Amino acid sequence: MGLIIVLICGYLVTSLADQNVHIMSINPSDRRLINDDDYMKNREAMITTEKKMRIGGTLSLDDNEQAVNKTIMLEKINMIEFSRVNHSQYIPSMSFYKVKPLIENSKLLKIIRNMPKGGALHVHDLSGVSLEWLIQNATYRDNIYLCVNSQSYIVFKAFKSPPQNPDCPWKSVKEERAAASSPEQFDAFLRHNLSLMISDPVETFADNNKAWDRFKIFFAQVANLIYYVPVFQDYQYRLLEEFNADNVQYLELRTSLQGLYDLNVPEYDEEYALLLLKNITEDFMKQNPEFIGTKVIFCGGRYANSSVILENVKKAMYLYQKYPDFLAGYDLVSDEEWYHTLLYYKDALLYPSQQTPPYKLPYFFHAGETDWQDTEVDYNLFDAILLNTTRIGHGYALSKHPFLAKLVKSRQIAVEVNPISNQLLRLLTDLRNHPMIGLMSDNFPIVISSDDPSSWGADPLSHDMYMAFMTMSGEDGDLTFLKQLAINSLQFSSMSSNVKQKAKKKWEIRWNTFIKQFS
Amino acid sequence: MGLIIVLICGYLVTSLADQNVHIMSINPSDRRLINDDDYMKNREAMITTEKKMRIGGTLSLDDNEQAVNKTIMLEKINMIEFSRVNHSQYIPSMSFYKVKPLIENSKLLKIIRNMPKGGALHVHDLSGVSLEWLIQNATYRDNIYLCVNSQSYIVFKAFKSPPQNPDCPWKSVKEERAAASSPEQFDAFLRHNLSLMISDPVETFADNNKAWDRFKIFFAQVANLIYYVPVFQDYQYRLLEEFNADNVQYLELRTSLQGLYDLNVPEYDEEYALLLLKNITEDFMKQNPEFIGTKVIFCGGRYANSSVILENVKKAMYLYQKYPDFLAGYDLVSDEEWYHTLLYYKDALLYPSQQTPPYKLPYFFHAGETDWQDTEVDYNLFDAILLNTTRIGHGYALSKHPFLAKLVKSRQIAVEVNPISNQLLRLLTDLRNHPMIGLMSDNFPIVISSDDPSSWGADPLSHDMYMAFMTMSGEDGDLTFLKQLAINSLQFSSMSSNVKQKAKKKWEIRWNTFIKQFS
Repeated sequence: MGLIIVLICGYLVTSLADQNVHIMSINPSDRRLINDDDYMKNREAMITTEKKMRIGGTLSLDDNEQAVNKTIMLEKINMIEFSRVNHSQYIPSMSFYKVKPLIENSKLLKIIRNMPKGGALHVHDLSGVSLEWLIQNATYRDNIYLCVNSQSYIVFKAFKSPPQNPDCPWKSVKEERAAASSPEQFDAFLRHNLSLMISDPVETFADNNKAWDRFKIFFAQVANLIYYVPVFQDYQYRLLEEFNADNVQYLELRTSLQGLYDLNVPEYDEEYALLLLKNITEDFMKQNPEFIGTKVIFCGGRYANSSVILENVKKAMYLYQKYPDFLAGYDLVSDEEWYHTLLYYKDALLYPSQQTPPYKLPYFFHAGETDWQDTEVDYNLFDAILLNTTRIGHGYALSKHPFLAKLVKSRQIAVEVNPISNQLLRLLTDLRNHPMIGLMSDNFPIVISSDDPSSWGADPLSHDMYMAFMTMSGEDGDLTFLKQLAINSLQFSSMSSNVKQKAKKKWEIRWNTFIKQFS
Repeated sequence: MGLIIVLICGYLVTSLADQNVHIMSINPSDRRLINDDDYMKNREAMITTEKKMRIGGTLSLDDNEQAVNKTIMLEKINMIEFSRVNHSQYIPSMSFYKVKPLIENSKLLKIIRNMPKGGALHVHDLSGVSLEWLIQNATYRDNIYLCVNSQSYIVFKAFKSPPQNPDCPWKSVKEERAAASSPEQFDAFLRHNLSLMISDPVETFADNNKAWDRFKIFFAQVANLIYYVPVFQDYQYRLLEEFNADNVQYLELRTSLQGLYDLNVPEYDEEYALLLLKNITEDFMKQNPEFIGTKVIFCGGRYANSSVILENVKKAMYLYQKYPDFLAGYDLVSDEEWYHTLLYYKDALLYPSQQTPPYKLPYFFHAGETDWQDTEVDYNLFDAILLNTTRIGHGYALSKHPFLAKLVKSRQIAVEVNPISNQLLRLLTDLRNHPMIGLMSDNFPIVISSDDPSSWGADPLSHDMYMAFMTMSGEDGDLTFLKQLAINSLQFSSMSSNVKQKAKKKWEIRWNTFIKQFS
């Protein structure tokens, strides 16, 4: 372990290469004359020490990587310095709704799109496929009906023949489209009704609550379109295609595994859904052998009562035992501020560890997706850790908890950060204030994911990676930052160590090709 | 030192009472059955451990203090829970421009106003007195002239008789007021022209740059009104009156000490200004013996060139030697993002320590008042610390610098946090995202101050304290948080240890009276 001793204005800073920085102040009366050279050397040493602490800080780039780095840093630094020096608005500090069209021609975004980004560890099944596919493909199927509810939102479902539904009468999508002045016009109407990207979403979804309210409506609109088995199969295959096309090699997909149906069976069970997903993945991997794989995180809804969640957990234990290579574990989802806490479900969630012998069901709890410090929502972070969570979904409030933050780092409990989601659900406005920045500067176990990209028209992962790069890694964060995030996404995945080693090799090959193709 | 051993899901947490928390994980196969009781005990222990780490976490309240605490926590918790549970907008999360009228009748704000808050360590001389006083008193003096510049902003200055000024012709304020339809209407016109609290400032000052541009104009408008010696004397006395009335007992005032003039002398020197301020303080303390005192931080402008700053520093050394009990030290002010860095002034700022023997001029540098991570502005934090700053003004970006943050804590370099200023200068929108929250939860050496309260119509300190309490201390932050901040404000002042001890006693008497009067 290398020891560097640096004199700083009469202070002795002993910086161990393992980043445990110890500071000892010596007698201030021993203050010595500082010349320019000493000052600049000390300054450089401090900056270097700190840079090494950040995500990617210990990676070094080879010559080919340096060439890529030069290109991406040129755009990044120009964009930052142009805004900073001219006092003009910095595009990536704005809402993603506004940013998206402004960066479409960005060379940097193009490079990030081409970059093999490893895995996306926090993605929900109902908003992983582009809205365009949903409209152009799913709604064109036979037997799809829509109704317009009292709030004027379209809701979809498949029927042999629709039942009476006075509050929201069902109409054939096919017939409605045929009756419209043109299919294009009809599809535009669907797009407008489904998308959260309305003309001024920043104004309309003025706070966290309003954004969540609309967000929940979106899921209710599309759930029974996507969970209709013929659509579900193609949707999930398409999801892998879209992520793969965005150069994401691995996916951990959160899904309820519930509510699947077709014209003959009103509800399939979780195992059926899991097997469908397993088969889809296997089919996809046959066609795309360079893809690393998919695992599923079975998710209960925070709105359910404890007995439902206990049944869920038992089912998760059964499925995890049977499909340990495909089911990663269990989580609870939906609006954390609105529904039940982890503590509320304590008995159900402790159930596995209370068996003899204890059963280890891996958890991947959403926790701390809130600005409400010290409330029961915020305290989900305590329970997630007490319940021995493998990773934390969002963990937005973690930096407010120094004790928990230390635990998270020492135990290497990875935090799944979803920048665009946090911004659009209005936890913050300017991503340069994201509370994870400090933890990223201190190499906390962090991965970047995309949560629900299709809800807000984002790329499967590239837009989130772009925003993280431009707002959460400082002006100096470079290719090492992006590369380390890709490595983290495999490192902190739920793959077994053997599989992980192979996955990393597969990713490395892709990475090297990406770098080579660039030069 | 008490040792508490807590078993958490098979992990041994050893929490030392000095808050150095060590976590050791034991063999996971040793996982034991968890019953409800154990779970809740572990949970409680973790929460308690973390609560003790925060600002005020080790203070305990006596019975009388408990009564005050009960009242303030009732309002705080009700306000938080009402918004949280009903998904309604949380008032203190909004812009202070909107918050101010909505909390005027708050019992909590009234209590905070009555609370002896100790010192305000970060206040600028040109915006410490209410705009109302400036209009109703200063502009009613003889010899005051105004002109309206090309941007339609009023600028004030005093003259025996005004010179030609074609770009902005001088007019007598007296005559203009007499010519107006009424003095009230004229004063309303002044108010509207000077105040940053325009009808929709959130919209108008849409980002950090636009806010700063207007902010700098404000200083240009009022500087030559306030620096006119007859006004200056009364203004500074009034400043002490207003802070004292807001139950602030001690002040460290940042001032340029330059630009003072009267009808006979075009410019007085810094020593003259310092002596004026010293006399004003002494006069005030004769009338208000319970007041603790004032010290002055001599400030250069970041827009000046290095030779000017070197002269400044030399002058500061001279004055500090001559008035060590009144001059606290030196700082550089104005828009940190727009003007020169500390590094630019390195030679001037190192000058004192390069003397034989080294001269210790205390520094109180503004640093890191920015969202631009890793840029030269952000790196002011490195230079402030390298230059051995006694405290840091703002330090908004500190949490992005884990290495520097450790130094700040170990060396107890206090950070002067100004919540409303940070929000109105648009570093962030919702104060619940303030980057200092994490550091406050970890008992960093932090004081709350108000920067430029009169620019945005805030109380001398109470509004900032209210906002910090309601947005930066969580739902559980209580009277111990406010009490510790008051203690911090004296502890981290530049008073000598002897004087500090006396000051703390003086404050304690006031604190006890405040508590007693309540019950």
